Amino acid sequence: MMKNICLTLDFDGTAFAGWQRQPGERTVQGTIEAALADLCREPVGITGCSRTDAGVHGKNYVANFYSEATVPEDRWLFPLNDRLPEDVRVTASRLVADDFHAQRDAIKKTYLYRFHNRSADLALGRQYVHQEKGRLDEAAMVACARLFLGHQDFAAFRSTGSSAKTTDRHVYESELTKDGDIYTYRVTGNGFLYNMVRILVGSILYVGHGTRSLDDIRKALDTGDRLLAGKVAPARGLMLDQVVYRD
Amino acid sequence: MMKNICLTLDFDGTAFAGWQRQPGERTVQGTIEAALADLCREPVGITGCSRTDAGVHGKNYVANFYSEATVPEDRWLFPLNDRLPEDVRVTASRLVADDFHAQRDAIKKTYLYRFHNRSADLALGRQYVHQEKGRLDEAAMVACARLFLGHQDFAAFRSTGSSAKTTDRHVYESELTKDGDIYTYRVTGNGFLYNMVRILVGSILYVGHGTRSLDDIRKALDTGDRLLAGKVAPARGLMLDQVVYRD
Repeated sequence: MMKNICLTLDFDGTAFAGWQRQPGERTVQGTIEAALADLCREPVGITGCSRTDAGVHGKNYVANFYSEATVPEDRWLFPLNDRLPEDVRVTASRLVADDFHAQRDAIKKTYLYRFHNRSADLALGRQYVHQEKGRLDEAAMVACARLFLGHQDFAAFRSTGSSAKTTDRHVYESELTKDGDIYTYRVTGNGFLYNMVRILVGSILYVGHGTRSLDDIRKALDTGDRLLAGKVAPARGLMLDQVVYRD
Repeated sequence: MMKNICLTLDFDGTAFAGWQRQPGERTVQGTIEAALADLCREPVGITGCSRTDAGVHGKNYVANFYSEATVPEDRWLFPLNDRLPEDVRVTASRLVADDFHAQRDAIKKTYLYRFHNRSADLALGRQYVHQEKGRLDEAAMVACARLFLGHQDFAAFRSTGSSAKTTDRHVYESELTKDGDIYTYRVTGNGFLYNMVRILVGSILYVGHGTRSLDDIRKALDTGDRLLAGKVAPARGLMLDQVVYRD
């Protein structure tokens, strides 16, 4: 009997060319599909909750696939992890409804972006934290993060190549905090445009440097003018942290 | 004029064969000496606070060297980091007394050992956290950690090859805590024997599994019998966290 199996995964994006399968590239999707094919002895396609970019990390990433294999639905963890490299780990598996779709059914996603502003980069954990050089105005950055809250048009905060029908998104959480040397930007939304989180962070950093004012960012939100927003912040600091589905 | 310069360093031990210079091996000491030689245009020897083993990490690691170079004493960070690989970072430099010696003058060191007990290993941060499989009795491990407090003979908790004159050490802190999935063992002492921290952790883990009892560990402390203590825990989870010197 064909079952729809949902996996929860962690992956270190450092050595991956992103989630999506691409010929000749080491991707998370391609790596898991190869492990599934070896285990199930037939090709198995897997659907991920999000097309994370090269270098972006995933925690509690959700994906689903269909299989008739006799592996008990909650026991895919061990045989898959035996076949996966150490930078991808399956942390749980479960049976889901036949029509569950890891991408379409997601109603909320939370991303974390970590950066620091020390003169020396981190040796430990450098894979997960971006170093932003120069002086940063912490209070301005905290205020900038708050501008992104609520239901708004984020047209100014996406890279071209985005195929989304609408550029409206609802942002439920958008907060910058600092613990010791490390800044963490936490953002939860009902969905994100192409490169949106990294452009929100790039805008926060530009405000931190004084390259953009809070008013520029407000205008970017009002007018959709990409040039008023910030650069695309480096992938290294970004991690998908949680995906929420309808019950 | 010859100056005695003290560096504070962070390093990710994953790709190093430990601190100490060895022909044909990538070591932290060898790597820093190569950077110093390039910068100063002459061979420079550096003294480290501790001979950390292969795979062990260092945070706030202290080292000193003598140089007549004209680099201002608090400005070695940038020219050195330019010449170092990204898994070693100099975080500070300062002038110290002519007779300061990073190893001999240390009066206290703190090490952290991190491990987890999840069925799936970590994908993110796996370089810094050991996975201990099987069931662990948390309360017994916490009690075991406390047994190491105080001035005691740690003869049972060192690997052979140790050349220390005495096996007495004073342990000021020895505490196991848990935050989410991650256990952290924190130990501060006036000095540690060869592999001592990893054997303290190995003993805690054996007590967690029931392979040793708390009474076995008490006897190991009383009798110096190495066989009553635990295995040497893997290097990956260990990090030197702080070194304290006389004012």
